[in-house]
Amino acid sequence: MKLFRTLISWEEALKTVLPHAERTELEEIRFEDALTRVLAEDILSPIDSPPFDRAAMDGYAIRGEDSFGASPQNPVLLKRKKSGGGEENRAELAEGDCVPIATGMPLPQGSNAVVMLEYTRERGDTVEIFKPVTPGKNVSFQGEDVKKGEAILKAGKILRAHDLGMLASLFTRTIRVYKRAKLGIIATGDELIDPALQSAEHDQWQRKQKIADSNSYTLAALTQKIANPYRIGIVRDNYDEIKDALRSSLERGCEGLLVSGGSSVGTRDFLGDAVEDLGELIFHGVAIRPGEPTGFGIINTKPIFVLPGYPVATIAAFELLVRPFLYAMHGVTEEQRKIFARASKKIPSAVGRTDFVRVKVLRTEQGYFAEPIRVSGSGILSSMTKSDGFVVIPENKEGVAEGELVAVTEYYSW
Amino acid sequence: MKLFRTLISWEEALKTVLPHAERTELEEIRFEDALTRVLAEDILSPIDSPPFDRAAMDGYAIRGEDSFGASPQNPVLLKRKKSGGGEENRAELAEGDCVPIATGMPLPQGSNAVVMLEYTRERGDTVEIFKPVTPGKNVSFQGEDVKKGEAILKAGKILRAHDLGMLASLFTRTIRVYKRAKLGIIATGDELIDPALQSAEHDQWQRKQKIADSNSYTLAALTQKIANPYRIGIVRDNYDEIKDALRSSLERGCEGLLVSGGSSVGTRDFLGDAVEDLGELIFHGVAIRPGEPTGFGIINTKPIFVLPGYPVATIAAFELLVRPFLYAMHGVTEEQRKIFARASKKIPSAVGRTDFVRVKVLRTEQGYFAEPIRVSGSGILSSMTKSDGFVVIPENKEGVAEGELVAVTEYYSW
Repeated sequence: MKLFRTLISWEEALKTVLPHAERTELEEIRFEDALTRVLAEDILSPIDSPPFDRAAMDGYAIRGEDSFGASPQNPVLLKRKKSGGGEENRAELAEGDCVPIATGMPLPQGSNAVVMLEYTRERGDTVEIFKPVTPGKNVSFQGEDVKKGEAILKAGKILRAHDLGMLASLFTRTIRVYKRAKLGIIATGDELIDPALQSAEHDQWQRKQKIADSNSYTLAALTQKIANPYRIGIVRDNYDEIKDALRSSLERGCEGLLVSGGSSVGTRDFLGDAVEDLGELIFHGVAIRPGEPTGFGIINTKPIFVLPGYPVATIAAFELLVRPFLYAMHGVTEEQRKIFARASKKIPSAVGRTDFVRVKVLRTEQGYFAEPIRVSGSGILSSMTKSDGFVVIPENKEGVAEGELVAVTEYYSW
Repeated sequence: MKLFRTLISWEEALKTVLPHAERTELEEIRFEDALTRVLAEDILSPIDSPPFDRAAMDGYAIRGEDSFGASPQNPVLLKRKKSGGGEENRAELAEGDCVPIATGMPLPQGSNAVVMLEYTRERGDTVEIFKPVTPGKNVSFQGEDVKKGEAILKAGKILRAHDLGMLASLFTRTIRVYKRAKLGIIATGDELIDPALQSAEHDQWQRKQKIADSNSYTLAALTQKIANPYRIGIVRDNYDEIKDALRSSLERGCEGLLVSGGSSVGTRDFLGDAVEDLGELIFHGVAIRPGEPTGFGIINTKPIFVLPGYPVATIAAFELLVRPFLYAMHGVTEEQRKIFARASKKIPSAVGRTDFVRVKVLRTEQGYFAEPIRVSGSGILSSMTKSDGFVVIPENKEGVAEGELVAVTEYYSW
């Protein structure tokens, strides 16, 4: 058994794991299936958008010049010409003419502005115009939105509803995105039982002093937004069982493994041993808190994250190491957004380790405050359900003073 | 045809639509399927968590008092007793004893602290302790995380990965959530064609000056995080076809409809007419910009949102009216989070209307800045793909000065 008593810094751990993040393959999917997927190519506009000058309002297409001087008391009278109809608007418009037009319709030749319906009144074959419009008013010009050849969405972007709308408007039927990696998720520990498989009575397990495996569910849900989690479940804290589980997970096509529990630097570090024997355990022990017993290894070029058994520690390790790794693997170029808030109380932290502090964000009229939930006790899962995000206190910093500004990464539900 | 020339305010529009938001039914689902679902009940803890005093570190369970005075130079010697084994830890510990213990294991009777493995060394049947620990050190106490009967998650919460972990840890196998409503999505307009059905060549439609229906895709994607969108597609701008589409969508079980396009206050308001004839068109025209030609009606108690045809306007109407409606319908009690940023330039706005301003958020060392993308042109879909969120300028406010603080609602991809 190898013992790793020296801890490496978070920065060094990150620098060690990231080069192992092999970008996933590309796949071509329909634009309408692309919500939350990561774009793998720049999308260049094949066209000008709008493809022609068009009305931005309902009303009458006119020559703006013809409306100058119009007022409610002194309307300008224009001759009403027939619209070209639903599909086209090929009416030609001469000085003193107007053509009824609906939002989105092409502007008739000769016109250069739209006067809103509200400022007009029909009088037989003529139309009264009550308000002057300058040329270009209420018109969306060809290419105003997007020019042909312009990169309108860049590779690395996580696609949102609006982006799908843009792809639709450009008739981009399929796009290339990064495949979602299949990530195996394992929880190790003799004390664990699967809560999904239990009867409603808690007495039984309570008597036996068993603990529910929450980590594999939390990790699967955290992974789900980025990749495809493959929850393998609980493996006993036994060298052979762990080794078999690692090997068979990779044989079943997992492109990486997140393994929680059994990862303490202890007398029973079967997981570390199994990784070392099947491949290489690159580090085991990171100066982060919670999350110290975090490790990383490689088996057949596949990344293996050795995560702490304690729920909050495993989430901390996920946010600090696994998430950046998965972003790199899936080509995400966007950074997670942070907000600034003032610490509502002192947050102690020791120099030489990076602290992952769960906070509640209070939005008050005096500004935003970050309230540390609890500083001690990495088993405090409720500190996660009550927290809105986290603050990272770097290793060279000795805590945060009350009132000091901190950068909070907020969790988002949707 | 009815004409609605008077606009109601955004506040009044909200006040009008929200009472029609009928809460969806409840359904019982497995906790592991509940990510992003809205909880419909308070979750009370059925147990203390942890259910027993347990080790928070790997090491030796001891009586803290026995370690007082220990140091590397002067270790305390304790008698090593056998652990109770994997499943139990029923060893009894007397003065001067220690028992090996792994993180998460129950504390043996008689012990009150754990000394970390790092500060110990085995010497045959005895163990050297190099560091004193106070009673309670490295122990997670029964009920420390959650007490029995405590509401640990409240109804109305959108469930996150951490919350699923909490449900797992409490052996909460199933929970009640609000059903996702089935919402029909229709785009009306003679100028529209479905981009998903087109050939890769754009010439054809470009020649015909057709416009891609992007709205139904954007609206479906915006709806998707909250409810189940049912994209019906394009309906021609024709009274009978629109009426048929509304009726048949509701007959097919849609619990509400989002209908874009054809909603301008114009000469061809077939949509407004059809809603009025099948039920009631409660308002049509809201003093928001973009998004003015937004309407709302009821057909057989089902809500019908009449949305502008212009892409940005329809998104504005969604964010300002449809989203709050869907939140109310699905029991969401959380508010959308905002951040404060300084306007990077003047944002003009007229008194008497609410402005929906798309902004890019710049996070600099000088603070956060909100840069308005473009103020005019509701057809500017690229202003949405380039924007990070929006600012609402209330109707009683005449624009925003450069440097003024504004509240930005940021979009989130994941």
